[in-house]
Amino acid sequence: MIFLRNDYSLGCHPDVLKALTDTNMELTVGYGLDDFCASAADKIKTIIDCPSADVHFLMGGTQTNLTCMSAFLRPHHSIISADTGHICVHETGAIEATGHKVNHMPTPDGKLRPADIEAAVAYHEDEHFVKPRIVYISNTTETGLVYTKSELYALREACDKHGLLLYMDGARLAMALTSPVTDFDFTDLPKIADAFYIGGTKCGAMFGEALVIVNDSLKEDMRFLIKQHGGLLAKGRLLGVQFGTLMSDNRYITWGTHANTMAKKLADAITAKGYEFYIKPESNQIFPIFPKELVAELEQKVSFEKWQYSTETHECIRLVASWGTTEEEVNAFLELI
Amino acid sequence: MIFLRNDYSLGCHPDVLKALTDTNMELTVGYGLDDFCASAADKIKTIIDCPSADVHFLMGGTQTNLTCMSAFLRPHHSIISADTGHICVHETGAIEATGHKVNHMPTPDGKLRPADIEAAVAYHEDEHFVKPRIVYISNTTETGLVYTKSELYALREACDKHGLLLYMDGARLAMALTSPVTDFDFTDLPKIADAFYIGGTKCGAMFGEALVIVNDSLKEDMRFLIKQHGGLLAKGRLLGVQFGTLMSDNRYITWGTHANTMAKKLADAITAKGYEFYIKPESNQIFPIFPKELVAELEQKVSFEKWQYSTETHECIRLVASWGTTEEEVNAFLELI
Amino acid sequence: MIFLRNDYSLGCHPDVLKALTDTNMELTVGYGLDDFCASAADKIKTIIDCPSADVHFLMGGTQTNLTCMSAFLRPHHSIISADTGHICVHETGAIEATGHKVNHMPTPDGKLRPADIEAAVAYHEDEHFVKPRIVYISNTTETGLVYTKSELYALREACDKHGLLLYMDGARLAMALTSPVTDFDFTDLPKIADAFYIGGTKCGAMFGEALVIVNDSLKEDMRFLIKQHGGLLAKGRLLGVQFGTLMSDNRYITWGTHANTMAKKLADAITAKGYEFYIKPESNQIFPIFPKELVAELEQKVSFEKWQYSTETHECIRLVASWGTTEEEVNAFLELI
Amino acid sequence: MIFLRNDYSLGCHPDVLKALTDTNMELTVGYGLDDFCASAADKIKTIIDCPSADVHFLMGGTQTNLTCMSAFLRPHHSIISADTGHICVHETGAIEATGHKVNHMPTPDGKLRPADIEAAVAYHEDEHFVKPRIVYISNTTETGLVYTKSELYALREACDKHGLLLYMDGARLAMALTSPVTDFDFTDLPKIADAFYIGGTKCGAMFGEALVIVNDSLKEDMRFLIKQHGGLLAKGRLLGVQFGTLMSDNRYITWGTHANTMAKKLADAITAKGYEFYIKPESNQIFPIFPKELVAELEQKVSFEKWQYSTETHECIRLVASWGTTEEEVNAFLELI
Repeated sequence: MIFLRNDYSLGCHPDVLKALTDTNMELTVGYGLDDFCASAADKIKTIIDCPSADVHFLMGGTQTNLTCMSAFLRPHHSIISADTGHICVHETGAIEATGHKVNHMPTPDGKLRPADIEAAVAYHEDEHFVKPRIVYISNTTETGLVYTKSELYALREACDKHGLLLYMDGARLAMALTSPVTDFDFTDLPKIADAFYIGGTKCGAMFGEALVIVNDSLKEDMRFLIKQHGGLLAKGRLLGVQFGTLMSDNRYITWGTHANTMAKKLADAITAKGYEFYIKPESNQIFPIFPKELVAELEQKVSFEKWQYSTETHECIRLVASWGTTEEEVNAFLELI
Repeated sequence: MIFLRNDYSLGCHPDVLKALTDTNMELTVGYGLDDFCASAADKIKTIIDCPSADVHFLMGGTQTNLTCMSAFLRPHHSIISADTGHICVHETGAIEATGHKVNHMPTPDGKLRPADIEAAVAYHEDEHFVKPRIVYISNTTETGLVYTKSELYALREACDKHGLLLYMDGARLAMALTSPVTDFDFTDLPKIADAFYIGGTKCGAMFGEALVIVNDSLKEDMRFLIKQHGGLLAKGRLLGVQFGTLMSDNRYITWGTHANTMAKKLADAITAKGYEFYIKPESNQIFPIFPKELVAELEQKVSFEKWQYSTETHECIRLVASWGTTEEEVNAFLELI
Repeated sequence: MIFLRNDYSLGCHPDVLKALTDTNMELTVGYGLDDFCASAADKIKTIIDCPSADVHFLMGGTQTNLTCMSAFLRPHHSIISADTGHICVHETGAIEATGHKVNHMPTPDGKLRPADIEAAVAYHEDEHFVKPRIVYISNTTETGLVYTKSELYALREACDKHGLLLYMDGARLAMALTSPVTDFDFTDLPKIADAFYIGGTKCGAMFGEALVIVNDSLKEDMRFLIKQHGGLLAKGRLLGVQFGTLMSDNRYITWGTHANTMAKKLADAITAKGYEFYIKPESNQIFPIFPKELVAELEQKVSFEKWQYSTETHECIRLVASWGTTEEEVNAFLELI
Repeated sequence: MIFLRNDYSLGCHPDVLKALTDTNMELTVGYGLDDFCASAADKIKTIIDCPSADVHFLMGGTQTNLTCMSAFLRPHHSIISADTGHICVHETGAIEATGHKVNHMPTPDGKLRPADIEAAVAYHEDEHFVKPRIVYISNTTETGLVYTKSELYALREACDKHGLLLYMDGARLAMALTSPVTDFDFTDLPKIADAFYIGGTKCGAMFGEALVIVNDSLKEDMRFLIKQHGGLLAKGRLLGVQFGTLMSDNRYITWGTHANTMAKKLADAITAKGYEFYIKPESNQIFPIFPKELVAELEQKVSFEKWQYSTETHECIRLVASWGTTEEEVNAFLELI
C-alpha cells in the first residue's frame, strides 16, 4: 500500500526519536519547567526574532486552539474563520464547548481575506450579537494553500483597523514556510500574529505544538489555562526535547521542504498527464481530480482520502506527502496513473 | 410618533394587569410551586390536548432557548437552525455559551426545510464533527412567515428519520396560530415538537414564556436546569397568574388575531399602493420596500426598524403590529404613504 | 395560616403596582434603553453618591450573580465565598455552570472575614490551582446577619492587599441598610464593592435587581453578557419603572425598616419568653430554637421553614418578615408561643 | 541530586521506548483506529476480565478526568470527591470549567467513605442544589493510601443505593494493585467502577492513560467527547504501542511492585530510625515527618516536595519512588538521615 493519506502516519523523524532516546533516563522536574523546554523556547524566540514572546508547549492542535480561544476571549467574543477552518469543521465543536461562537465565513478556496473580516464586523451590530474578537487563519490552509506575505500583512491591517486579534494555526507551518510560492519567513510571524503555533505533529515531531504568544496582553496566567484544559503535560520535557530538535540544524525547514518537494513532484506529473486540480497545488496537500474508474483502481493500491468534489464522471482526492514520503513512493504512485 | 417598531413596546394587556392586581396580596409559596402555576399548566395541557406534557414557566425567550438546549443536549450535540433563527443571530451566542454549536443553514426566506436537515446530517460525518441532535424552528419565523401544517409534519418526519429532536420557538406563537395562512392549531403542536414554548412577552403578557416538554425523555430534572440558568423566578406565581389569563376565554387566540389583522390591513393597503415586500406578509411582522425618500419621511413620524435589504433607490423596513396596535395607528400610518 | 416563610410571598408593594399600572400603556423602546431605566439609574447613582457607576437591571439574583461572575472573571479564576453563601448552596451550581469554581470557606456564622480571604489566597499556590479573583459576600447574609461598616472596610482592605475584587449580593440590601445594628449607608457601598446589586424582589418590587458596577475595568460590554445569559428583559422598562419607585421618597429604606422592625418585635418577644436563637437576630430573618413539640404545633398554623440545627428535644426554624408583614400577623404568631 | 520528587521525572521504561522505536516507521491510520490500539484494548479487556468494556487512550490524567465528567454528566450534576482529590485541588478547576461543581468532602486521610456519600446526598435536597451523580476516588489516593477490596465494594454499594456512578482515577493504579496492603486485583475493577482509567504516565509509559468504560450507558459517542476536549491524539498509535507493552509480560504489575518496594524500603528504614509519618506509608508516595534542620539538610542533596503539615520543630515531606528508582538512590537517601 502506498501511503499518501496524511502527514501523521509515521511515528516521528529518526532525529527526534534519537533525541528522546538520548534523554530518556535524565531526571527533570515536571510540567515544562525543565531546561529542555527553556532551551527549546529560546531557540524559537531566536528563530522568529522575537525575544519578548512567550512560548508554551502543548500536545495537539485542537488542544492548542481551544486553550487559546478560551484564554484570549471574554464570553461574548467570537472568532472569525473561513468556514473550511479546522476549528469550524474538524474539532467537534471544541471552541463552542469553551463557550464561544465561531463565525463561519464562506470563501472560494479556504483562504480568509480582509473583506471577510469587514463583512463579519459589519454584521455584528450590537449587544444582541456576539462580538468578533479574533481572526483565525490556518497556514497552510486546510485546502493546501499558502498565504502570501502581502496577504498576511493585509489581514493584520484589517485586524488592527477593527481592534481584532490575529491567531495563526500552524499545524502545517513547516510546509507553509517552504512552499515554492512562499515569500515570508519565520521572522514575519510575530509581526503578523498576536499568537500562533508551530506545528510539530505533522512536521516531524512525535507529537506536540509550540504556542507562541507575541501580544503582551495575552500572556498573563497562560499556564493556568493550559493546565485547566489538560494540556500541561506532566513530562513536559518530552516536548522540550522534541522542539529543541526540530528547531536545530534547520530541520524544520528541511523537513517541510521535503514534504513540499514530494508533493510538487506528484502535482507536476499529474498535471503533465493532463489532469486538473480542485484547488491549485501549493504545498504538501494536493487535490487532483481523476476519473472515477481511476480512483477506484487507486483505492486498491494507495491509501488516500476522497475530497468533497464529485461529478458524474470524476472525483477529487487528497494526496498528502510528509517529511517521510520517499521518492520511491511517489514514483510508484505515478506509475499507477 | 406612531409606534410600529415591535410587539413588546407596551406593558401588558389590561386583562393581564388586572389579574396581577387582583392577586397581588395573596401569599404563595415560591418558585412556581403555587396553585396559579399549577392551574395555568393544566389549562395549557388541556388546550394542546396533551395531558402528559410538562409545563414550566420562564421569564424570556433567550432564557428558555438556552435552558432547553443545555438541558436536552450532550456536549457534542449541535442544533440545526435557519441562519436567520433567533438563536443564530440575536442571542449574543447564548447557545454557544452553554457549549453547543449551532449549525447555521442558509434559507431563501427564513424557513427551515427537510432538505436543510438532510444537508446538515450528511455534512457531519464522524466524531471530528459535532453531532446534530435538535432542529430549531421559530413559528412565526423571524421573517414573519408561518409554517404550514404540512411543512411542520414534514419537518417532524425528517427529524424522526434521523433520530433528531424538534424544538419550536413560539415567541410569536399567538400570531402563528392565527394568521390567515395558518392551517394548524394548538393540538398539532405536541405531535410536531418534542418541546416548544408558548410566547407570552410578545403576545399580551407582561413577561414570560410557557415551556411545554412533550417528549418524556427530556423531562427529567428540568427544574434543576431552569434554576441553574437563573430562570426559576422566586415569585413564580406571577407567571402562573399571567398564563392563567392568557389561556382563558380564548384570549391568546383573540390577541394574536388582532395583531395579524392590523398587520394585514397595513400590508393590503401598502400593496394597493403598488409597493412590494421583501418577504411575503403573513403575520404581524411585515417587510415593505419603500423609496428611500419615503423612508426618510416616515422616520420623522413613525418608530420602526430598517431591515437588511437596500438598493440605490429603495430600502426595506419592518413594521410590527401587536395586540395593542389600534386602527387609528394603522390609519395614521397609511396616510403617510 | 400565618405566613412567615419568606420575603417573596406577596406580589409587590402597592406603590410598585401603581407605577406599573400608570405606565402600562406607554410605548417605549426595548431592552432597557428607555427613559424609565435611565431615570432609575440616575436615582441610584445619586443615592449611592457615585455618578460614574454603571447601572443595569436584571430579573433575579441568581441571574445577576452568574452574569457578573461570568463577565468579571477569566476561566481560571475562582470566587471566595462563605460556604453558606447563596452561590455555594442555593443556585444549582449556576456559577460552576459558567465554568468557575467557588471556594467554599467554612465560617462560624455565615460571615466572611479577612482571615478567610488570607486562607483562600494562601492555599492556591500555583497554576495547578484555580486563582481566587473575586470575594463574594451577601449583605444581609443568608444567616440574617449584617456586616458592620468596619467589617466591610476590612474586607475591602484584604481584597486590595491581594488584588481581589469584592462583589456584594444585595438580595436583602434594604434590610442590611436598616437593621438596628447597621452603621453604614448607601454611600459606603461604592467605596467597599467593585460591584453589587440592590435587591428588588425581596424588598418590595414585583421582581428585579439593580446591578451597580463601580470598578471601571468591569464595565466593558456588560450588556453583551447580560443578553447572553438571557437577562436583557425585552420590556426592560418594567424594571426601570419599579426601581424608579423603590428609589424615590425613601421607600427602599422605609420598607426595609418595616421588615426589620417586624422581625425585631418577633425576636424580642421570643427572647422574653426565654427561647434562644441559632444565630443572633439582626435583620428580617431570625432563627429561634424551639422545643420540637412547639414546632409541631406551629406547623399547623404558620408557614415557615425548618433550619439545619436540631437536637433530640429542640430544633431551629427560620421566620422571615417582609415589607408586607403586619403587626397582626406578628401578634398572632406570638400568641402561639 | 537524589531524585525522589515524583514518579514522572524520567522519560519512560526502556521497554516502552524500544516498542516505540521498533514501530516508529510503520504507517498507520490516525486517531486511535489502528491495530496497535485495538490490540492493546483487547489485552486490557482480557486482563480485567471484562470483554464488554470500551477502552479509549488519552494523553493525561486531567484530560481523562475532565473528558469523562463532561461526557457522563448532565449540567446540573455534581461529583462527590474527597477534598484532597486530584480534581478538587490540582486541576485548576478543570471540572468546573466543563460546568460541574465538585462536592469537596473533608476526610481524615484522603480516603472517601460511604458515610461521605451519604452526607453529600443528604445535603443536596432539591432543585436549588446541584445533584450529586458521580463518586470520584483515586486509587492510590493522593495521600498514598490504597483502598482495600472491602472498602471499594462498600463504596460501590453506597453508589448503587443512591443511583450514583463510581469513577476511579487510576493515575497510580500500578502501585494500588501491588502494595503490600492490596487485596484486590485487576478483575475487581469492572465490578467496582462504572469507569476508571489505568495510569500510564506515572507507571512506566512515556505518556498516556487507558480509560475503561464498563457501564454501557456511558459508552455512547465517547470519541466525540474525547475529540472535543483535544484528547484524540492524531498519532493514537503511540498510545496503543505503549499500552500494548505495559499490558504484556506482567510489566504493569512488575513496575508497580518495584516502585512500592523501593518506597517500603525507605519507609521501613525511616521508621526504624524513629521517625513518624503524617500518613501511614502504603504505596510509592510516603510522607515522613522530619526535624526542620534535617529537612534543610536534605534539600541540599535530594529533590522532593514539602507537604502541608508543619510544626515549630518538624515538617512533613513527600518522597516518591517510581519504576525507575534504584536501590542505590534509596540507600544514598537513607545515609543522609
